[in-house]
Amino acid sequence: MNRLEVCLSPELIHLYDLEGKVVVIVDILRATSCMTAGIGSGVKAIHPVASLDECAELMKQGYIGAAERGGQQVEGFDIGNSPFSYMEVGTTGKKIAVTTTNGTVAITKSKTADEVIIGSFLNISAVSDYVKKADKDLIIHCAGWKGRVNLEDTLFAGALTDLLKNEFALECDSALASLAVYEEARPDMMGFLEQSSHVRRLKRLNIEKDIEFCLRKDEFAVVPVLKGDEIFKA
Amino acid sequence: MNRLEVCLSPELIHLYDLEGKVVVIVDILRATSCMTAGIGSGVKAIHPVASLDECAELMKQGYIGAAERGGQQVEGFDIGNSPFSYMEVGTTGKKIAVTTTNGTVAITKSKTADEVIIGSFLNISAVSDYVKKADKDLIIHCAGWKGRVNLEDTLFAGALTDLLKNEFALECDSALASLAVYEEARPDMMGFLEQSSHVRRLKRLNIEKDIEFCLRKDEFAVVPVLKGDEIFKA
Repeated sequence: MNRLEVCLSPELIHLYDLEGKVVVIVDILRATSCMTAGIGSGVKAIHPVASLDECAELMKQGYIGAAERGGQQVEGFDIGNSPFSYMEVGTTGKKIAVTTTNGTVAITKSKTADEVIIGSFLNISAVSDYVKKADKDLIIHCAGWKGRVNLEDTLFAGALTDLLKNEFALECDSALASLAVYEEARPDMMGFLEQSSHVRRLKRLNIEKDIEFCLRKDEFAVVPVLKGDEIFKA
Repeated sequence: MNRLEVCLSPELIHLYDLEGKVVVIVDILRATSCMTAGIGSGVKAIHPVASLDECAELMKQGYIGAAERGGQQVEGFDIGNSPFSYMEVGTTGKKIAVTTTNGTVAITKSKTADEVIIGSFLNISAVSDYVKKADKDLIIHCAGWKGRVNLEDTLFAGALTDLLKNEFALECDSALASLAVYEEARPDMMGFLEQSSHVRRLKRLNIEKDIEFCLRKDEFAVVPVLKGDEIFKA
């Protein structure tokens, strides 16, 4: 039986052996939800970078530039961090360069894995099917918030673990804890997340519609995968 | 309102500002449970150290030497890591030198806090009362397992958060996640923990009696506190 582990923060990923494994990157609000929505809507590729400068550089090469800081779109860039913007870009078939802090750190720190894929509620069943077929050990890597554990990524880790618990060995306490969090939150995920300071902060920015969308399951049947420095449809 | 935060691993504690705060160290299986049982039974002081050598050195100075590796007592030392041994030593009024890996790391990394105290289910209400009276921001610092998050310390963090949730602001997703884990586990904590690989490993060593004891609430009405390098009754 393959093993499933959960890493609740990029600050803990050095404690996990990634070799030969599939890593699912999770940044529910909103990087991996945006990536899923974009790739699911026809975006050709997504190039995550750490800095605004790198993002601006790729814009010069014809990429759509996506940049968000403190929950809001940065001036001079084409779009911010709303999944709806990614879906609009999708219809054009273009590439997106995105500067995301937590998500990019998690992706960069996962590159020694055999495969790196992008997970969100929007494609949770597609991710579940993909990793079952991959037939390798799995690590669900939560991007968290500035290195800290966050509620929405933990919740997703639990939801994905729930889908996989009969086909993977759960020899990881973080997986069991995430599963318990998901069981507790399942009847009302939005209500549960409203306790979170990050979600409250985002709600003040009037992006409740984004948050609700990011919690919808299976809007897209795609699995975005990392190849080199860019993310494509599997 | 003072703030309550939870840090799920010593590998994350650098992300927390400890200055002016009370830190509760948590290592349920079994370091902080042993410390509580010992101090609650009359042990004069407990000196945690990282290595077997340091522990042996203190034994030469008259300390009872407590050493455990891989769940078992190390040859040449007086006791292992069972709370019952600590309770026996307690009757003698002696000092104990203990080498614990996870617990010592958590204590060492917390020393910049205003106060460092020892928490376990065995003294959970005493800890709760103490931190309410202290009237400072609080960080519950889980020792985890070799840097990883573990289930039993997370469960305790949730149980203590539950006791304090009306008197502290919970602006920390790890606190909310721990609380959800506790809510989920509350009806049968032992059954819940039996999923954990650490608990299964300990059970193979026939220390089920220890585990059950470590989950009992309020066996002792003491709060062990760190003063310099040693732990005393508050």
